[in-house]
Amino acid sequence: MADAKPLFGKVALIGIGLIGSSMAHAIRRADLAGHISGYARRPETLARAREIGFADTLTGSIPEAVKDADLVVLATPVGSFGEIAAEMAPHLKTGAIVSDVGSVKSAVLRDVGPHIPDGVHFIPAHPIAGTEQSGPDAGFAELFDNRWCVLTPPPGTDKDALARLRTFWERCGSNVDVMEAKHHDLALAITSHVPHLIAYNIVGTADDLETVTEGEVIKYSAGGFRDFTRIAASDPTMWRDVFLNNREAVLEVLGRFSEDLSVLQRAIRWGDGDALFNLFTRTRAIRRGILDAGQDSAEPNFGRNRTKKDQ
Amino acid sequence: MADAKPLFGKVALIGIGLIGSSMAHAIRRADLAGHISGYARRPETLARAREIGFADTLTGSIPEAVKDADLVVLATPVGSFGEIAAEMAPHLKTGAIVSDVGSVKSAVLRDVGPHIPDGVHFIPAHPIAGTEQSGPDAGFAELFDNRWCVLTPPPGTDKDALARLRTFWERCGSNVDVMEAKHHDLALAITSHVPHLIAYNIVGTADDLETVTEGEVIKYSAGGFRDFTRIAASDPTMWRDVFLNNREAVLEVLGRFSEDLSVLQRAIRWGDGDALFNLFTRTRAIRRGILDAGQDSAEPNFGRNRTKKDQ
Repeated sequence: MADAKPLFGKVALIGIGLIGSSMAHAIRRADLAGHISGYARRPETLARAREIGFADTLTGSIPEAVKDADLVVLATPVGSFGEIAAEMAPHLKTGAIVSDVGSVKSAVLRDVGPHIPDGVHFIPAHPIAGTEQSGPDAGFAELFDNRWCVLTPPPGTDKDALARLRTFWERCGSNVDVMEAKHHDLALAITSHVPHLIAYNIVGTADDLETVTEGEVIKYSAGGFRDFTRIAASDPTMWRDVFLNNREAVLEVLGRFSEDLSVLQRAIRWGDGDALFNLFTRTRAIRRGILDAGQDSAEPNFGRNRTKKDQ
Repeated sequence: MADAKPLFGKVALIGIGLIGSSMAHAIRRADLAGHISGYARRPETLARAREIGFADTLTGSIPEAVKDADLVVLATPVGSFGEIAAEMAPHLKTGAIVSDVGSVKSAVLRDVGPHIPDGVHFIPAHPIAGTEQSGPDAGFAELFDNRWCVLTPPPGTDKDALARLRTFWERCGSNVDVMEAKHHDLALAITSHVPHLIAYNIVGTADDLETVTEGEVIKYSAGGFRDFTRIAASDPTMWRDVFLNNREAVLEVLGRFSEDLSVLQRAIRWGDGDALFNLFTRTRAIRRGILDAGQDSAEPNFGRNRTKKDQ
C-alpha cells in the first residue's frame, strides 16, 4: 500500500467535532487522502485542531476548505447544511463528491441537493457511530471500526462515485449499506433518535421530581438510570437538529412507543404479571442478537471501568 | 483483622443468584461470617454453586439453611418472599437479623413483617448494584464496592441490630443510607424501575416495527438503542415482581414521564427547537453529577471493550 495513490487527492471536512476529527484520524490511518483540509466556524476549534494536528490545513473559510477537494464531507449539525451548501457550491470542483455524516437523510437531500452544481456527485451518508463526547478532542481513528455506514444515493447517482464512497467508508473500518433516505430515517428513528429522546426525557423527569432529591438520583443511579444519562449528555445542538429534521419518522415511532407503554402501564395497574414476564423474556433475544453481531460488549455492565471493580 | 471474630457466626443466603452469590464472595473477602449457608430451590443451581464453592453449606431446605443463622438474607425475587418467610419463621434463632436485598421495600415490610417472630430483628435492605446477568455464575465480590445500600428499618427497630447490618454492608464495600420504605420506593422508581420499564418497552417496540427489519435494528443499534438492550436483558422474574410490588410509585413516575414526553413530542411536531435545546442542555448536568460522584465510568461509551476499538 505504501506506494499506492491515496483514494482521494484532497478531502475537505466541513466540521471537525467528534465525527469530523475521527474521520481525519481514520483517513490518515488508512492513507485515504493526499491532503485533509478542515473547516470550523469558531477560532477556538481551529486552534485546538491545529494543536492536535489531524488535518493538513485548517481554515475558517468554506470556499478555501472545499477548493480543489475531491471529497467534501459535511460534519456540522444538520440544521446548518443548507446554508453551508449554498456557500460552498460555487467553489466545488467538477467531478467532486459531496457527502455528509448527518443522522437524518431525507432532510439532507431536501436542503443540500438543490445547491449541488451539475458535474458534482451528491451522496448523503451516515456513519452509525459516536460517543457522548463532542469537539475536536473527542475524535479517534477506531470510532467507525465494525460499525455500519448507510449511504442514501439519490436516483441517478453515478455508479463509480458511489463505489468510491463505499470504498472510502470500508477503509475507514465500516460496513456499508445502501438504501433509500426515507427507510434510513425510519430505521434510525427506532435505533437512535427515539432512544435519545427517551433518555433526555427520563433525565429531565428525574431532575424535576422534587420529592426525590438530585443527590439521591445521582447516588442511586447505578440501579439503571445512569445508563440513560450517557446518551442524554450528547451534543444538544446536533440532537435538536436531528429531531427538527426527522419529525415524521420520530413522531411515528414515538406514537408506537407510547402506545406500547400504555399497555405496560395497564398491566402494572391491573397486576398482569404474565404480560410483563412475556415482554421481559422476549426482549432478551434482541440483546443476544446485538452481542452475536459484535455491536456491543458482552461484558456485564458494558465492561465499565475495565475491571469488575467500580461497576 | 486476622484474629478478630467474624461479624456474624452464620449467615444464611436464601437465593444464590447474582446478588446472593456476590454477597457470598463479598462476605468471604471481608471475613464477615464464620459460616455461609446457601439455599436454592433448583437442584441445578445448588450443583453449580457447589462447583463454584462460594458457600460452606448448600441446601434445598429453607429450615436447614436458616437454622442457627445470625443473619438471614432473602435474595430471591420479591414475589416469593411471603411464602419463604412463612416457611422459615419457626426455625429462626432468637436474636437473629432477617434482611433482604429486594428492589422494593414497602411490599417487603407488608409481606415479610407479619411472619417475623418476637425476638427476631427484621430490617429490609436494598443494595443498589447489579448487572444484566443472573445466576450463581454471575456473582463477584466487588459488585457492591462504592455502590449505595439503603436500609429501611421499621419503627422500633433495635439500634444495635441496625448498627450491625450497617457495618455488614459497609464491609461489603457499600455506602449505607437509612430511610423510610415509601421514600425508597419512590426514589428507586425513578432511578431504576421506570428506566428498566422504558428500556423493556423500547426494545419491544423495535421488535414489533415490521417495516424495519430485526437485522437493521441490530446492525444500527450503536446509534443508541444498544444501551437500552442491556438493562432489557435483566432477569424477567425479578423485574416482573418489582413492578407488581411497587405499583403506586412506578405509576406515579410513569405518569410524569409520559406527561414530559408529550411536551417533547409537541415541541418536535411544532418545530420548537429552543425547548429541545434547553432540555438537552439541562440533562448534561446530571451526567456530570453522576461522574463526579464516582457512580459511572467517565470513559466514552462506558469504556466498552476496554479499548477505543469496537466501541
